[in-house]
Amino acid sequence: MIITIVGLGVIGGSFAMALNELQEHEIYGVDVNKETIDKAKKLGIIKDGCTSGSDFIRRSDLVIIGLYPSAILNFLKENQGNFKRGAIITDVTGIKETFINEALGIIPKEVDFIFGHPMAGREKKGIDFASKEVFKGANYLLTPHNKNKEENLSKIESLVLKIGFSRVRRITPREHDKIISFTSQLPHAIAVALINSDKEEFDTGAFIGDSYRDLTRIANINEGLWSELFLGNKDNLLQSIESFQDQLNSIKDAIINEDRESLTKLFKESGIRREKL
Amino acid sequence: MIITIVGLGVIGGSFAMALNELQEHEIYGVDVNKETIDKAKKLGIIKDGCTSGSDFIRRSDLVIIGLYPSAILNFLKENQGNFKRGAIITDVTGIKETFINEALGIIPKEVDFIFGHPMAGREKKGIDFASKEVFKGANYLLTPHNKNKEENLSKIESLVLKIGFSRVRRITPREHDKIISFTSQLPHAIAVALINSDKEEFDTGAFIGDSYRDLTRIANINEGLWSELFLGNKDNLLQSIESFQDQLNSIKDAIINEDRESLTKLFKESGIRREKL
Repeated sequence: MIITIVGLGVIGGSFAMALNELQEHEIYGVDVNKETIDKAKKLGIIKDGCTSGSDFIRRSDLVIIGLYPSAILNFLKENQGNFKRGAIITDVTGIKETFINEALGIIPKEVDFIFGHPMAGREKKGIDFASKEVFKGANYLLTPHNKNKEENLSKIESLVLKIGFSRVRRITPREHDKIISFTSQLPHAIAVALINSDKEEFDTGAFIGDSYRDLTRIANINEGLWSELFLGNKDNLLQSIESFQDQLNSIKDAIINEDRESLTKLFKESGIRREKL
Repeated sequence: MIITIVGLGVIGGSFAMALNELQEHEIYGVDVNKETIDKAKKLGIIKDGCTSGSDFIRRSDLVIIGLYPSAILNFLKENQGNFKRGAIITDVTGIKETFINEALGIIPKEVDFIFGHPMAGREKKGIDFASKEVFKGANYLLTPHNKNKEENLSKIESLVLKIGFSRVRRITPREHDKIISFTSQLPHAIAVALINSDKEEFDTGAFIGDSYRDLTRIANINEGLWSELFLGNKDNLLQSIESFQDQLNSIKDAIINEDRESLTKLFKESGIRREKL
């Protein structure tokens, strides 16, 4: 296939690396940053690239868009007439329901947009942090809509399994956003709140173990992307935050009441759940 | 030195392994569980061991107690007359202020109790999960009191640096408990609340990335130990939980008000803090 990757950031760049390794496809890159294109060429992970990609897109069987949700919509608008008939487009966006509804209004009918979400990433941004290793063993989610062709969904499935993902699941955009608000966005909100609640009275770094390190790793967050993701999944995320707050309040109440029995019960429950994971 | 380790669980067992590797000391083990003693002997990490340790303790220059806070106090009471004159005792307890006050009332005056806290551990318990590797590069905290001899404090410092810890800090018990409530106990409370807030509508495991995995690792918690640690540091932990709740509410408010600017600001702040860590 001729594949164009739009946005050679940490995810797009990782796709280029992983796909390039298969040595089965002709890969092109599009990125607004000329330096990024040069780096990708130097790494040999794209055959060619440029900052505005209509030429590549016209020839591509598959276009992988690794941009922020709002930027994808702009990109689709600008390139409505540029896609090859029958091409597959796919994204890597962490929110789906509202985004898909908006995107479906723009997509030309001669292409098939398969909405996907690789559950892999790095806390840093940019091609310098791209790595095909992040995909190894990770989950991939597809949120099909009624215009998708089964053969194209299967094609994307096979491709992502080939580049290292271990599991592909199909779910509705609504389910996707609900569960992602819990498994991905809530942890990010927690990590940010945890590190921001540091009163910095002490030299924190000298007093931490793995637990604090683990819980704050993702606090180094891409602020532009994640504010879009949070606001684009507002209601689900608020619900997830509130369920979490209820649980934290149960722990707090048990401490206030010096209720060892309730505390032990909460800890046992969490232990069983983690073991099951 | 002749060293007796009391409690060959994950921390005591790791001490036995790490000390044994130095090949400089004669190491004995005490554990209520006969099977644990047999395992430790089979591993060759103790010279001998038994379920009640007064014989070893009488001869030991250093006694490392790897028990829960309440069990340490019982152990001290039972062995008040058994310690060698001039021996050093040390603990590995995660809370200090109240605990030290209680312990100082029991400790015989001919021994020097150096209170310590290795900031290393495993989420699982028991000798099967002991490993000298967990100490590598970790922080060690000492909370000296006015009866400690400087030479004994230095002796413990050198010893823990020798078995892999990278940094030893001395702080007051009050400071210790304050900062530990934030860097260690709060993350555990969060991890437990996070996994317990899973509504389990979906097969969660298929929808997680590294973030959820990282944030819930420590949810597999030793319920007996951690309920003691939480309740033994009640006021500090409640304060840390509340500061965290304030920060999480700031994120929540920004989402409710669709206030992208505030959200971005909170994310930038957390990124800078994490980078600094």
